[in-house]
Amino acid sequence: ALEEDDSALKALVAEYHPSEIAILFEGLPQESRERIISILPAEVASEVISEMDAEFHPEKLLENLHPERRSEIVEELDYDDATDIISQLPEEQQQEILEELDEEDASNIRSLLKYDDDTAGGLMNTQVIKISMKLMKKDALELVIQQSEEMEEFYTINVIDDKNVLRGIVSLKDIIKARNNVRIEEIIKTDFVFVKADTDQEEVARLISQYNLTSIPVVDDNMHLLGRITFDDVIDVMEEENTEDILKISGVSEDEELAGNWKEAVKSRLPWLILNLGTAFLAASVIRYFDSSIARMGILAGYMVMIAGMGGNAATQALAVTVRRISLNDLTDNQAYRTVLKEFTVGLINGASIGFVIFLFAVFYDGNPMLGLVIFVAMTGNLIIAGMAGSSIPLMLKRVGIDPAIASSIIITTFTDVFGFLLLLGLASKLLL
Amino acid sequence: ALEEDDSALKALVAEYHPSEIAILFEGLPQESRERIISILPAEVASEVISEMDAEFHPEKLLENLHPERRSEIVEELDYDDATDIISQLPEEQQQEILEELDEEDASNIRSLLKYDDDTAGGLMNTQVIKISMKLMKKDALELVIQQSEEMEEFYTINVIDDKNVLRGIVSLKDIIKARNNVRIEEIIKTDFVFVKADTDQEEVARLISQYNLTSIPVVDDNMHLLGRITFDDVIDVMEEENTEDILKISGVSEDEELAGNWKEAVKSRLPWLILNLGTAFLAASVIRYFDSSIARMGILAGYMVMIAGMGGNAATQALAVTVRRISLNDLTDNQAYRTVLKEFTVGLINGASIGFVIFLFAVFYDGNPMLGLVIFVAMTGNLIIAGMAGSSIPLMLKRVGIDPAIASSIIITTFTDVFGFLLLLGLASKLLL
Repeated sequence: ALEEDDSALKALVAEYHPSEIAILFEGLPQESRERIISILPAEVASEVISEMDAEFHPEKLLENLHPERRSEIVEELDYDDATDIISQLPEEQQQEILEELDEEDASNIRSLLKYDDDTAGGLMNTQVIKISMKLMKKDALELVIQQSEEMEEFYTINVIDDKNVLRGIVSLKDIIKARNNVRIEEIIKTDFVFVKADTDQEEVARLISQYNLTSIPVVDDNMHLLGRITFDDVIDVMEEENTEDILKISGVSEDEELAGNWKEAVKSRLPWLILNLGTAFLAASVIRYFDSSIARMGILAGYMVMIAGMGGNAATQALAVTVRRISLNDLTDNQAYRTVLKEFTVGLINGASIGFVIFLFAVFYDGNPMLGLVIFVAMTGNLIIAGMAGSSIPLMLKRVGIDPAIASSIIITTFTDVFGFLLLLGLASKLLL
Repeated sequence: ALEEDDSALKALVAEYHPSEIAILFEGLPQESRERIISILPAEVASEVISEMDAEFHPEKLLENLHPERRSEIVEELDYDDATDIISQLPEEQQQEILEELDEEDASNIRSLLKYDDDTAGGLMNTQVIKISMKLMKKDALELVIQQSEEMEEFYTINVIDDKNVLRGIVSLKDIIKARNNVRIEEIIKTDFVFVKADTDQEEVARLISQYNLTSIPVVDDNMHLLGRITFDDVIDVMEEENTEDILKISGVSEDEELAGNWKEAVKSRLPWLILNLGTAFLAASVIRYFDSSIARMGILAGYMVMIAGMGGNAATQALAVTVRRISLNDLTDNQAYRTVLKEFTVGLINGASIGFVIFLFAVFYDGNPMLGLVIFVAMTGNLIIAGMAGSSIPLMLKRVGIDPAIASSIIITTFTDVFGFLLLLGLASKLLL
């Protein structure tokens, strides 16, 4: 369809919702994206750009546009979206775009560019509905309707005093229900949830999720209203944080873009593999220490691999459950203690079960019951250590303020490798040779 | 504080928001939870219960309550929350509780109990705001306010015809802004997003997130309005689905409760370890096949462990990135092809880099350049296979309709073990011995 003339293309894309076009874009080359953006009405183009995932680089679509057209599109964007997108461009281009905008839009975006991406300030939109607490019902209602003309959606109405200090919130419904001679200050809710501009985005997401809020006001240190964050921004934050968790626990840097190129992937993953190489040398040195035992009993090598494999997987299981649990809720000391105790028990039972199967194999296939016993003990011990390391290491990291997901499987599995080899080869050297 | 008398306890808990009490409950024994629930006002108790995470078993708090008190609390619950909680109880107790309720509440909850937990029907609340399309502005506004009395929050107003068929939606703001002589049908939005009762909850979450909706109507096959799902339910679904993804990718059954006891954990994890044991026997049999090579060159055992460790970790990295990418977006054939190609390149570069470090070690520490060369080739080949398996296996599973996260690290890492050993030991046997 992209080969036909513009009017056919226009008719085609007119049938899609902007968020659908944004998804469609992910499969299209950059030229096709630019061509479609150039023929869309400015308000649709701006919605498409704001709906695009950051990793498909919506900012690149602004680069080659005619300045006038670009201002049109940027002015249609919400300030928070405009800021997110513009902040991805080089400083010089940022200035160029801001200079093309009208004064009010430019100064709003400039003030948002000051905040860190992953704080409430970086997430917030400065367009808010706000009314004075002294207003009577009728005037308040009129003012709200008037302010809402420029916004697609609004949820909570912010109520301020004459110094722009946020004093409460109220819903449209409550204003409508109020009698005519009521002043807004009589019906506001004064115990509301709010965040400071420097609050971490994860904390914002937690509050919105815990209190089921559609939006949350952002204030400065003196309770002056700066903006608002809405639930849909938080849904995006949650997806982003969950991606980071899955990546980190698997030994991938949290900022690798899922759809990034191979260069980014190498940069993100090679350092973790090199770290793993260091710990693998440690495991290998345990094996070298028992060199002669292995040479005298080659059969041990196969069992070593089983010990390492099962230990690594059991540790990954305990790690995943513990890291996810910590990321959803803080654990008390007592809960943390019981978690490690539980993983000890799980390791004991799973280790003994797996160990018993291998014991049978060693007895009936290799005809060596003593070897079977050594492996049974080594497997059980290894899975106990795996469970305890997989649970206690992330818990300890959290306690000292380090992200527990960093205790990725890469670190934990080598830990179990070293211990498992020591146990198996040490016991084998003592008891079998 | 729990040791003091009830009035002190009452004063204490009165200072907390219900969702804070729900979190506090997670660290308390069952008796303390029951005692606190018994002294809270019914409307607070019901909010606490509805805010509790399913894995802390809010339904158990209902079991020992006096029937009258229990009805009070259940009647305060939203129908969807009441249904979720009651559905966790045995059939007999469900009936008992439903019989205590007033007829309307009981029949609403009964109809919701029919739907699967993880469908739109299972998520929805049947309490909705609905007005007839024929109403004039003033009557509509009055009806909305009247209906909203019983709801804590509402977002979208559903507009139906005289057969209860959903014809459109409208916002409170739009009704207020309308002129007095306007009929609702003139201002409704007729291209709105909705779901059927049997739509999967993941799809509901996707739609709410994609279109930034505060709530979405649920209809039957004939577009009769059944209920609504709100963004806060979807935030919970997203957390649940993300937990399942992290667990599955780590070889833990998706339904293991994070705070569950050791019995559940063994039941959830042991089957995966036994599956892994089967594949580990395969890797071990490769080693047994090269028994004599290892006996003649004991130094190989240490390098084997490095090959297995690095291959497993590189595969886990590729797997995490690919599974997460699939779970956020479907990939086109072309994108899938480019993903596997990218992982090939990443494996080649990372494998050659790591291989080169080990090559240097083999040359300068072991004084065996030929051994170094064998390891270099084996490591590079192994990491290429790791990347391609880690990306292509989940992509293929997705293509045939199987959950890609099931391609857990457990399966992929053994795959790379077998291949890595074959490559290392095969080359070593040919070239070194």
